[in-house]
Amino acid sequence: MSDTARGTSRRYGTRPTMKDVAARAGVGLKTVSRVVNGEPGVTPDTERRVQEAITALGFRRNDSARILRKGRTASIGLVLEDLADPFYGPLNRAVEEVARSHGALLINGSSAEDPAREQELVLALCARRVDGLVIIPAADDHRYLAPEIAAGIATVFVDRPAGRIDADVVLSDSFGGAQDAVAHLIAHGHRRIGFIGDQPRIHTAHERLRGYRTAMVAAGLPVDESWVSLGPTAPERVRSAATTMLAGPQPVTALFAGNNRVTVTAVRVLADHPRPVALVGFDDFELADLVNPAITVVAQDAARLGRTAAQLLFRRLDGADDAPRRMEIPTRLIPRGSGEIPPAES
Amino acid sequence: MSDTARGTSRRYGTRPTMKDVAARAGVGLKTVSRVVNGEPGVTPDTERRVQEAITALGFRRNDSARILRKGRTASIGLVLEDLADPFYGPLNRAVEEVARSHGALLINGSSAEDPAREQELVLALCARRVDGLVIIPAADDHRYLAPEIAAGIATVFVDRPAGRIDADVVLSDSFGGAQDAVAHLIAHGHRRIGFIGDQPRIHTAHERLRGYRTAMVAAGLPVDESWVSLGPTAPERVRSAATTMLAGPQPVTALFAGNNRVTVTAVRVLADHPRPVALVGFDDFELADLVNPAITVVAQDAARLGRTAAQLLFRRLDGADDAPRRMEIPTRLIPRGSGEIPPAES
Repeated sequence: MSDTARGTSRRYGTRPTMKDVAARAGVGLKTVSRVVNGEPGVTPDTERRVQEAITALGFRRNDSARILRKGRTASIGLVLEDLADPFYGPLNRAVEEVARSHGALLINGSSAEDPAREQELVLALCARRVDGLVIIPAADDHRYLAPEIAAGIATVFVDRPAGRIDADVVLSDSFGGAQDAVAHLIAHGHRRIGFIGDQPRIHTAHERLRGYRTAMVAAGLPVDESWVSLGPTAPERVRSAATTMLAGPQPVTALFAGNNRVTVTAVRVLADHPRPVALVGFDDFELADLVNPAITVVAQDAARLGRTAAQLLFRRLDGADDAPRRMEIPTRLIPRGSGEIPPAES
Repeated sequence: MSDTARGTSRRYGTRPTMKDVAARAGVGLKTVSRVVNGEPGVTPDTERRVQEAITALGFRRNDSARILRKGRTASIGLVLEDLADPFYGPLNRAVEEVARSHGALLINGSSAEDPAREQELVLALCARRVDGLVIIPAADDHRYLAPEIAAGIATVFVDRPAGRIDADVVLSDSFGGAQDAVAHLIAHGHRRIGFIGDQPRIHTAHERLRGYRTAMVAAGLPVDESWVSLGPTAPERVRSAATTMLAGPQPVTALFAGNNRVTVTAVRVLADHPRPVALVGFDDFELADLVNPAITVVAQDAARLGRTAAQLLFRRLDGADDAPRRMEIPTRLIPRGSGEIPPAES
């Protein structure tokens, strides 16, 4: 124990080098290098002496040096929007599983929906010489990545497309899923349907709004602009948007929530609301089937999004050099009760 | 677009070097190095020419080289147990926020509760020369880390303690929280209380079981071994454990769930159960207050765990070399209904 404590106190003490190992093992530097890099030409006895010296000194190979020599690092980067959004958990894990199956380390971090932070994080990962990147973009201009891609960093975008560069992308069918959700509410008799979505500059928010409008128009229904609210998914913002739509002489009788962050707040608002209001949420979420009423959702397959993106990335790393691909993962409407509530008399 | 596509196709094309920049700018290598590293002694005009060459060639400094020269990398590693467990989301984000406030990049990955995978990931991060590590351990022997710590990698354990080495650790009060949960059920009249927890080798599972037993003993209640089930938190395992405890002539009248993974499955089992059964879960979770009945929990402050661990880490990186610290974060019982259900007549 005290060894470690002492170790802690010489935090910036120098690491043992191959020279130290060679000296202790009584062999040449080249011999140590052969053992460390698993090259032939070392007798079993010598290899044992070197291994003993390595163990005794706690020598570790410095990958920074190896990266400089060899180029490939067997690591990929994943840039998420928010590490704490449950939607990204299964996506994150799926990417890691694929990386692991290819013997690669996953390095990740989040942009917190800040384009500058995305660029900073992406370039920091590039500077670490990751072999490839899976990016859930916050920015809408990725020309800053072109030199990295040209220099050999494979890049796949997921959940949202790249901006102003051409790269592989894997998306959910946000437009189609939103159409399904709103058509479902219309089929249950609703005419005044509110949409609360994420910030309009976010591709998925924009696509889901487009799906909402398209479904309303297809049913010959007007869209009162007071029924549409896009913005941050912070609970306060969503709560006030929902409260406004539910007030007045002509309140909405149904809500379409643009993602799981919006839905969970909408569920809270509706739980306190005097009249029953229908709700369909984009994204499934844990326990959605156990709240009362159970929540009808348009489910995305987050794990499949991540798995597909990672597979595309390793396909590039394995040498595929055809034109960038755009893949779309279908969504699925799951009726559970909240989306089948008829319009209340206002 | 096609530029990028071509870029993609020469994926392993060589990157521009400082030499290329020097040639294009018509200056010496040392001048380029001065500009890249922000050193003085370059005229504004020369600096502009170098910057233009850097932009034109898409040159990026290679941090692997800088790391070899300077030692510090301004990056820390976080090793989680499961990237998809919602408990770790706020912890992950809190560590990232502290790292960011110190200008450090967060690199993370998950052990999937596999000790070998933890060691592989930790050593891979050490080989990348992270300055420090925050570890939620899956292993119970961390002597493999002693050489890294001695070599200068600051290390803080969170959620679970280190095994067989001495290091900073930040824990929730699992023992006290579990006692509170079980005492709460006893106070509501329960005598036959089941405990379903995570794998016994996991510190928190062990501590929560100890809290359960201590509370039962303190109330003079026997513990039938058929009321205790530890193991993986996979839904099937938890479902069968709960079903067994709820069956037979002397079923449990209350369940204490050892973590949020167990609780969500227990909620599903009890939703289908004919008799009302009380439930208290360790860990709060989203919508716990909106399921019916609302779930009484022992809440941990995951964000505070992560924040405290990261602050301890940077305290070490700032040179603190006192003995390793052990900090305990209190838990909080939140009564919501499921934990206040009286015993049903069996």
